[in-house]
Amino acid sequence: MTGGYLERLAVRSASTGTVLCLGLDPEPAGLPRGFAHDVTGIEAFAMLALDACLPSVAAVKPNLAFYEAFGSRGLAVVERIRARVPRDVPLILDAKRADIGSTSARLAVALFDALGADAVTLNPYLGREAIAPLLEGPDRYAYVLCRTSNPGADELQGLRVGDETLATRVARRVAAWPEASTEGVGLVVGATAPAELEAIRAVVPGLGFLVPGLGAQGGDADAVLRAGPASEGSVGERPGGGLVVNVGRGILGAAGNGSRDPSRDPAEALAEAAQGWAARLPVLA
Amino acid sequence: MTGGYLERLAVRSASTGTVLCLGLDPEPAGLPRGFAHDVTGIEAFAMLALDACLPSVAAVKPNLAFYEAFGSRGLAVVERIRARVPRDVPLILDAKRADIGSTSARLAVALFDALGADAVTLNPYLGREAIAPLLEGPDRYAYVLCRTSNPGADELQGLRVGDETLATRVARRVAAWPEASTEGVGLVVGATAPAELEAIRAVVPGLGFLVPGLGAQGGDADAVLRAGPASEGSVGERPGGGLVVNVGRGILGAAGNGSRDPSRDPAEALAEAAQGWAARLPVLA
Repeated sequence: MTGGYLERLAVRSASTGTVLCLGLDPEPAGLPRGFAHDVTGIEAFAMLALDACLPSVAAVKPNLAFYEAFGSRGLAVVERIRARVPRDVPLILDAKRADIGSTSARLAVALFDALGADAVTLNPYLGREAIAPLLEGPDRYAYVLCRTSNPGADELQGLRVGDETLATRVARRVAAWPEASTEGVGLVVGATAPAELEAIRAVVPGLGFLVPGLGAQGGDADAVLRAGPASEGSVGERPGGGLVVNVGRGILGAAGNGSRDPSRDPAEALAEAAQGWAARLPVLA
Repeated sequence: MTGGYLERLAVRSASTGTVLCLGLDPEPAGLPRGFAHDVTGIEAFAMLALDACLPSVAAVKPNLAFYEAFGSRGLAVVERIRARVPRDVPLILDAKRADIGSTSARLAVALFDALGADAVTLNPYLGREAIAPLLEGPDRYAYVLCRTSNPGADELQGLRVGDETLATRVARRVAAWPEASTEGVGLVVGATAPAELEAIRAVVPGLGFLVPGLGAQGGDADAVLRAGPASEGSVGERPGGGLVVNVGRGILGAAGNGSRDPSRDPAEALAEAAQGWAARLPVLA
């Protein structure tokens, strides 16, 4: 596999026709009937969902917390997910981490080497100097949290810094990092705040975005398709514009306890839900 | 064991006479001669350091990244460290995490239940609403990153928000969270910026502080002993004032490749280094 992360994402987006990312975050309470409420049930369901949805998704994003909840046995499931995801499907590990420099180097080994991530999510609070060791090497990519999708995101991210919000300032700074010009870094911007999404896109037209918050969180898909893709630079020229849109519970819930028809075959329900979201999140020309 | 985390920390600080915390962060490159440069060597050295230093420390703080660098086998080492740390010695898991609400609940299970933390470190960027699920239950405690010890911390933390820095604003907000009044939350404030440490302490006189940055990072021990302990409220009345001061490489390095006398017995060198730091970091009356 040649090319950097965004190039591989673009190839995959073009071949599937969608910017959909499968949020592979299985919870014991949401498992379909018949699955054990322990780490074996979590693994069985994750693998079922992966196989069922894979044809319809541009990327796969497990959030590590859902596996770490089972300790080292849970992290071993992530290792087996890594082994099962084909190399042409980008694997984004949602870690939301960052640490001081000497520790960041070990974190890079953990996420990119031990767990085999193609891209990761990181937290900007410690600054670029802390994140840089994670991004050494041409094949590494990180989405830095900018405007998150949770209801309380504005407590810090909405603070005024000069004439803009902290989230917008983070976006502007990340765009100025050297890793931005080498396609090594992008942003996490939630779909739950469409006005902020558009405002942030306006100041960083050339960065890749990972957009969570559709589906269960109720975000706005039209705003995501309008403001999500990069419009400038090398990223803006790629199919999909460097955009990837995560849907987790909106897909996994189709097969879970809370689904409309719990007696339905889970694999069929998951595949159909993924196809539906893929159609709603096309690669625009 | 009765009482909340800060009460247990105070009992331990009083009995050892120190606010020293052992930063249990073993790196392959820093292992003494004779230790394998893999996860078995990391575990052997971590257990050796734990046993040698335990009598001289108030708390133990593994940073998860140093173990996660070995994948699920590394996380299993953390589980065995948990089993080896006596219940009267607070175990702080340095995770620097935070996630949106529904994921935070699983993160809480991962850190407090699966890995058995007494306290954890968290990142404030997503706001209190994202952190709250991690702090449900009377026995949980979190140190929220405020002013970190890395050279580039000021990129975000030093931004002006109104008439103060972002770090100071974070401190002020955390002190206003309901979890602060129930002794459920404190701050991480690095020793590498003594002026900021004193400024932050001045605005939050009643919060517990975890202070990294002494030893290898060159922080100022006098400033830490002066401004580190809480001076007001229930925390200020406890032995140690809710302060815990982390030293990692400054202790582990005494036995490592880079030590002055690599032929010396590692356990002896580690014990002596911990005793030295404990004496420099006393519980003040």
